[in-house]
Amino acid sequence: MIPQGFRFAGVRCGLKNKRNDLGLIVSDRPARAACLITQNVVRAACCDVTREAARDGMLQGVVVNSGNANCCTGTQGMLDARRMASLAEEALSLPAASLAVASTGVIGQALDMVKVEAGIADAATKLGSDPGPFMDAILTTDLVEKSASAAIPGGGIVYGVAKGSGMIAPNMATMLAFVATDADCTDIVLDAALRRANEISFGCMTVDGDTSTNDMLLVMANGASGIRPNLEAFEAALTEVCVSLAKQVARDGEGATKLIEVVVTGSSDPKRIARTIAESPLVKTAMFGCDPNWGRIMMAAGRAGVPFDPNRCRLSIKGGEVEFPLFVDGGPAVFDSKEVSAALKSDEVRIDFWLGDGERARIYSCDFGYGYVRINAEYHT
Amino acid sequence: MIPQGFRFAGVRCGLKNKRNDLGLIVSDRPARAACLITQNVVRAACCDVTREAARDGMLQGVVVNSGNANCCTGTQGMLDARRMASLAEEALSLPAASLAVASTGVIGQALDMVKVEAGIADAATKLGSDPGPFMDAILTTDLVEKSASAAIPGGGIVYGVAKGSGMIAPNMATMLAFVATDADCTDIVLDAALRRANEISFGCMTVDGDTSTNDMLLVMANGASGIRPNLEAFEAALTEVCVSLAKQVARDGEGATKLIEVVVTGSSDPKRIARTIAESPLVKTAMFGCDPNWGRIMMAAGRAGVPFDPNRCRLSIKGGEVEFPLFVDGGPAVFDSKEVSAALKSDEVRIDFWLGDGERARIYSCDFGYGYVRINAEYHT
Repeated sequence: MIPQGFRFAGVRCGLKNKRNDLGLIVSDRPARAACLITQNVVRAACCDVTREAARDGMLQGVVVNSGNANCCTGTQGMLDARRMASLAEEALSLPAASLAVASTGVIGQALDMVKVEAGIADAATKLGSDPGPFMDAILTTDLVEKSASAAIPGGGIVYGVAKGSGMIAPNMATMLAFVATDADCTDIVLDAALRRANEISFGCMTVDGDTSTNDMLLVMANGASGIRPNLEAFEAALTEVCVSLAKQVARDGEGATKLIEVVVTGSSDPKRIARTIAESPLVKTAMFGCDPNWGRIMMAAGRAGVPFDPNRCRLSIKGGEVEFPLFVDGGPAVFDSKEVSAALKSDEVRIDFWLGDGERARIYSCDFGYGYVRINAEYHT
Repeated sequence: MIPQGFRFAGVRCGLKNKRNDLGLIVSDRPARAACLITQNVVRAACCDVTREAARDGMLQGVVVNSGNANCCTGTQGMLDARRMASLAEEALSLPAASLAVASTGVIGQALDMVKVEAGIADAATKLGSDPGPFMDAILTTDLVEKSASAAIPGGGIVYGVAKGSGMIAPNMATMLAFVATDADCTDIVLDAALRRANEISFGCMTVDGDTSTNDMLLVMANGASGIRPNLEAFEAALTEVCVSLAKQVARDGEGATKLIEVVVTGSSDPKRIARTIAESPLVKTAMFGCDPNWGRIMMAAGRAGVPFDPNRCRLSIKGGEVEFPLFVDGGPAVFDSKEVSAALKSDEVRIDFWLGDGERARIYSCDFGYGYVRINAEYHT
């Protein structure tokens, strides 16, 4: 399900070896837009250019490259990011400051603008309704393309694509995600809706705790469906798309073999405990090894800096459809290690930690195996 | 150099497969003592037993087992920890509450007290001046034994042994370390001296950011040398021993191939930035791969939550004896990647990040490779 009035392109301009590396999304009319960018102090030029372009709440598309983050590249980097936008605006006969810019890849190398210029010219001639080439163009070490869509009750579609993989932590978007909808959002404060959707989707996702310099979550609403949804209906669809994309990003974390959902209930800060469990290298390697070594989960929870009574908590783990209590009423539960280990071979594992009645937080993460080391120790070579 | 009046023993009682797993340190007279224990909310019983025993500022030794953390083991765990102390006190004809207790190993399994009892009886007959068997008895996944000593100017010796490996983060001791001195510390507030020494040694060390449930740093001063050092002389020796042990623990982190020292100067919180760099999985895997991918260091610094101006900072890296500037005055420095990569093959790497004049912080860490995953994904099996 693709929203009306949006076209996509993805081409190979040579920034990467064998895959598409330059992409465009273009709306056939100006769209209401909102964006969230990385909270990292070290921020790529594209983040600032996009924020400027979206300041008036309107955009008509986005131009993206992969293979180079254009970050820590000084004044030249800022000039290059601006030029990416203006080259695409000229090629598409769009007004200045109507396009967002995003980059992802290696930090600290100058962008090869000869390649980028050729890529933009090429992509501008290849816009179409198939988002496939675009999805391919934004990937780095991702193994799979990520997209999600939801129908807005009453009409209109919300559609999103994302890339993730490494440098993924719950602190704003922490990756690239572009959401397009043909709903008419005249009556909706898009920025606020996006912030709320982000809070429980990309904001609850972690691969390695590292926050990228280039993170961007962008939504564009072009109104092409002619339908004005109410806030509730629109936000439900937007949230559904963002949560689906966040889970896809977590599941495809670098070297990951499974999606891990950590759910913590109770205490003064369940989200902080859930995040500490989800980011613990010892928990993540145990999950990779299908090892029901629940002591590490207790350890991670205990070091989160949030007080709780270890003698009152309950811990269980679910792999596939089977749930096993591991720790109950201050003591270890009786379970068959082999049975739990077999269940942990599932590609979806859920850790449930109960500290008392109260608020519940949910973090999406993945396991941590040889693949992560291989990808990141040999990234440059 | 072993201080006078201390004896050591290490034996195999069967908690582990092939190595020593029960150890004793005993002073021939009551010693002034101070200890720091883990700040983890989930805390092993031995930590509480030791804190109680040391409450009066005096101890006469420590009994330690490896292979089982005796943590998350409920009421029985507390009874077992107390019994470890009293069994050893009886075997050594020492008064009650004169021994500290420490445990390290798997969380959540009941201690086999039949084995422990036999081990304590055995160890009590084997006390001697060679600390080797004791050092072996406290190791888990450590590859090498860790000890350090320093002469106190004017007389007396500070000697320490430690174990580390995984679940190591700068938050109190985060491992086991026992320091013995024959100095007469009557005039010294031992607890305060230990806290200050810890602050710049074990408190500045990280392997994986995970803080153990069983961490303990213990110092005992038995006065057997008959010499009363002044605070300055004693604290210098104590700090030297603690820093040496902390570096040894970091260097022998699980799967580590090198010691990484992160030095950050300037900003409102250089220690927080240094720690974030030192704990970043992307930085650690790059160091494992000898990859001068300095953008990841910038990324990690930027996500530490401490404001700084990326256009004013300087970054350099030193492998062996050669130092390379990587980022200068807001832009990448020119360097030969192959040359830097060759230097990073050294077993000691130093990352220097300068953000302006001001306070300097130093964190000891290690790289992150296949070994960490192998050890922790296959820990149980």
